[in-house]
Amino acid sequence: MPEARIAEPDFRERVEESFARQAAMKLIGADLTLCEPGIVEIELPFRDDLTQQHNFLHAGIISAALDAACGYAAFSLMPQGSAVLTIEFKVNLLAPGKGERFLFRGEVTKPGRTIMVSDGQAFAVGDTEVKLIATMTATLMVVQDRKGLQG
Amino acid sequence: MPEARIAEPDFRERVEESFARQAAMKLIGADLTLCEPGIVEIELPFRDDLTQQHNFLHAGIISAALDAACGYAAFSLMPQGSAVLTIEFKVNLLAPGKGERFLFRGEVTKPGRTIMVSDGQAFAVGDTEVKLIATMTATLMVVQDRKGLQG
Amino acid sequence: MPEARIAEPDFRERVEESFARQAAMKLIGADLTLCEPGIVEIELPFRDDLTQQHNFLHAGIISAALDAACGYAAFSLMPQGSAVLTIEFKVNLLAPGKGERFLFRGEVTKPGRTIMVSDGQAFAVGDTEVKLIATMTATLMVVQDRKGLQG
Amino acid sequence: MPEARIAEPDFRERVEESFARQAAMKLIGADLTLCEPGIVEIELPFRDDLTQQHNFLHAGIISAALDAACGYAAFSLMPQGSAVLTIEFKVNLLAPGKGERFLFRGEVTKPGRTIMVSDGQAFAVGDTEVKLIATMTATLMVVQDRKGLQG
Repeated sequence: MPEARIAEPDFRERVEESFARQAAMKLIGADLTLCEPGIVEIELPFRDDLTQQHNFLHAGIISAALDAACGYAAFSLMPQGSAVLTIEFKVNLLAPGKGERFLFRGEVTKPGRTIMVSDGQAFAVGDTEVKLIATMTATLMVVQDRKGLQG
Repeated sequence: MPEARIAEPDFRERVEESFARQAAMKLIGADLTLCEPGIVEIELPFRDDLTQQHNFLHAGIISAALDAACGYAAFSLMPQGSAVLTIEFKVNLLAPGKGERFLFRGEVTKPGRTIMVSDGQAFAVGDTEVKLIATMTATLMVVQDRKGLQG
Repeated sequence: MPEARIAEPDFRERVEESFARQAAMKLIGADLTLCEPGIVEIELPFRDDLTQQHNFLHAGIISAALDAACGYAAFSLMPQGSAVLTIEFKVNLLAPGKGERFLFRGEVTKPGRTIMVSDGQAFAVGDTEVKLIATMTATLMVVQDRKGLQG
Repeated sequence: MPEARIAEPDFRERVEESFARQAAMKLIGADLTLCEPGIVEIELPFRDDLTQQHNFLHAGIISAALDAACGYAAFSLMPQGSAVLTIEFKVNLLAPGKGERFLFRGEVTKPGRTIMVSDGQAFAVGDTEVKLIATMTATLMVVQDRKGLQG
């Protein structure tokens, strides 16, 4: 059903290189664990300093990881020399961010030359259960030839 | 035009106490700087470890602070014994998160017994300029008498 | 992966009866064509009086049909005596609303006692091609025992 | 606070001409009643055939009028020869669409060369009261030199 997802040969290097420059991902302890054309996964262990007032994973931390997953899923399909900018996203919080480990998956729903749309899912991963805790829809922009903007 | 905003006498203490329990706000260096009935402001100095790949404030960090501002704006109008949960939010990123200091303002657009809606604005604050960099619309839930959930 | 979707025996009659009372669906020529627990499909033939300025299906008409599909998908899982209210939705328009016939599918992503979340997809259906033209995420409320509100 | 809104001299004619081509606005009985640079208002009398199952104005009809108001607010600031496309919008339904007449106001929050963001408000207008019933945030695209796409 989805449109063909064609990535340039160096897509994975470019995604990894750009992700490594996201200092906020380092701050929260997020790792890039999968990168296929149009699909990116990020993993995050629970930490006490990432929580909101009820000791669940903060919605903003969930958003940060989902935004990175959705944005890099889109970036993986962009031509060399592009940069990715998030135009907007929406997050629905479906269940408390309770768990020892979290998985964030972003996938391109609609590729495009200027605008791409990705959908993301956040899961709390336990020993015996995987629970969907949030979803995101994100609109991304392909930026080309803007001075100083890469990745 | 907005509906009357009536807060209980201890609203400010309850907001401050709950905000203080948001470990993620401490992690990113955010301070609660204003709390009026239905209005909350949060401030955040720029830090290199809060950035995305172009060295701007990460959209997820912007979302974290806007979510707290919108959520606590709603919580300030909730009756004693309530807890606030974010159901969903949408963020539009209007300009790069470039600046030395950021201000996040959340304001209740629609109070309610079960559901509240807040709108938020994020500003980059410079010496001579204040620039709108993002907006949020958030839907919040008033949770009452749920064991272990407070604030 | 999705949570169990348990509907009461009369769910289909209740959905059909409520849909039949949506005068706006009649106005735009939309038909309810499928109703399973947590899933609803609506079909709509193209008409010249449903268009925007470029002669494509108007985003508001797409939203009307997607809202009905998402709302009734949720309603199909609600207990007898409930009414469904849309709290909010977001629509991404992925391709022009060009085609002879359109299919709108709503599916419950997260059931709940008070709040449900549905995701919807809009397709332009041609003789040889089915094209995804829009997606929706909708947050619905289960309303019970509110005087005069049913269905 | 908002950025300067500079419209070309013929902005009003272009908005009126394009609105007149929106057949869906005719179908629902909506009139363009105000057009200033970056601001558009649309009015709509209540009609029984515009309702959902509780006899309130259908969320899809509210979205159609808000989308037009937000889209044309943006279009009013676009250069000659442009066309406006809605990328996405989010609607929050704050109160039932109950009333004899409705006013929809769209205003540009962020102008731009490629992407614009508008915010909209829907009001039920009575003899003695004006009630906010819904809000929209919409992301619009400036399309130039695309064959067959104008207005």
